[in-house]
Amino acid sequence: MRILGIDPGSLVTGYGVVERRGAGLHHVAHGTLRPTRGAPLATRLAAIHAGIVAVIESHRPELVVVERVFVAVNPRAALVLGQARGVALAAAAAAGLRVDELSPQAVKLAVVGTGTAQKLQVQRMVQRLLALEALPAQDAADALAAALCAAQQSPRLTLAVAGLDASRTLRRARRPRGTTRAGRFVLRRSR
Amino acid sequence: MRILGIDPGSLVTGYGVVERRGAGLHHVAHGTLRPTRGAPLATRLAAIHAGIVAVIESHRPELVVVERVFVAVNPRAALVLGQARGVALAAAAAAGLRVDELSPQAVKLAVVGTGTAQKLQVQRMVQRLLALEALPAQDAADALAAALCAAQQSPRLTLAVAGLDASRTLRRARRPRGTTRAGRFVLRRSR
Repeated sequence: MRILGIDPGSLVTGYGVVERRGAGLHHVAHGTLRPTRGAPLATRLAAIHAGIVAVIESHRPELVVVERVFVAVNPRAALVLGQARGVALAAAAAAGLRVDELSPQAVKLAVVGTGTAQKLQVQRMVQRLLALEALPAQDAADALAAALCAAQQSPRLTLAVAGLDASRTLRRARRPRGTTRAGRFVLRRSR
Repeated sequence: MRILGIDPGSLVTGYGVVERRGAGLHHVAHGTLRPTRGAPLATRLAAIHAGIVAVIESHRPELVVVERVFVAVNPRAALVLGQARGVALAAAAAAGLRVDELSPQAVKLAVVGTGTAQKLQVQRMVQRLLALEALPAQDAADALAAALCAAQQSPRLTLAVAGLDASRTLRRARRPRGTTRAGRFVLRRSR
């Protein structure tokens, strides 16, 4: 099961692909699409569309997830975000993929353990959970976090990360000794 | 010179194609794209994208025009509009077409003669200017109006409509006797 997370934006669109094999979760790819600044709006949107199409063709996800938008005060920003978001969603659906929306709070809660996590916390936790060598860019980290959150909603899941096995916390379970918490994931040092 | 006007919307996207041949303006096609209600958002956006791609392939416009958005009060509506708009713009740019934005006021002024024209006035004037047998649907009429406005911004233009020749008003020109005004177009009964 491969999951593509997308964090759409007019200037930077982040993407991240994770794969669940059995009970394990693995990093496949992540990156950002940055249309040429100063190019016409339509050209930049076409670049985002083409970029998402290319990511889907390269990595063949079976599910796409994006964060649900809770529109804030600024209608202009909502319009600009909507344009980039529409393009990404259309590209995914045109490839025949299911597109799920997750609340930003759920994504942060799943990965960091608090719905109000800062950007940097998300980046660091995503880096740790997926054993990435470098800190992923903000938008790519948000995309990977969405993919992780979607993967984590499956019934049973173990993360194999950087010398750690991470078992998913069961709702009733208390965190065992010798483990650390990473959002809803519990990391246990592997023997 | 073929011009495609698009009036994007999440429920209904209107399109209209007009062609300038020499100094004449002719109707080529118009219609609406109506994605299946109740289908997932991404699927509906993909349908709009595919629809615009099909219109472009069928009618081969050289220029695409959309109305500029002056965002009103509602950020949620701005997001929803943005998603449909982004998809339409991306489809046009991916086909290598230039995309121009026109203010809604300029479009209404050009076609009806007042920047605050009602929807029905636009529909009726578009029907008349392009000698359409039936009143075009609102969103298709708005798309045709945008295309007409873009065409009218060319230096010299004559409309051949329903037994009328319409010469473009020159800025200094007074409307000659025996003509009627249709926005910035002057309609003269042909001999």
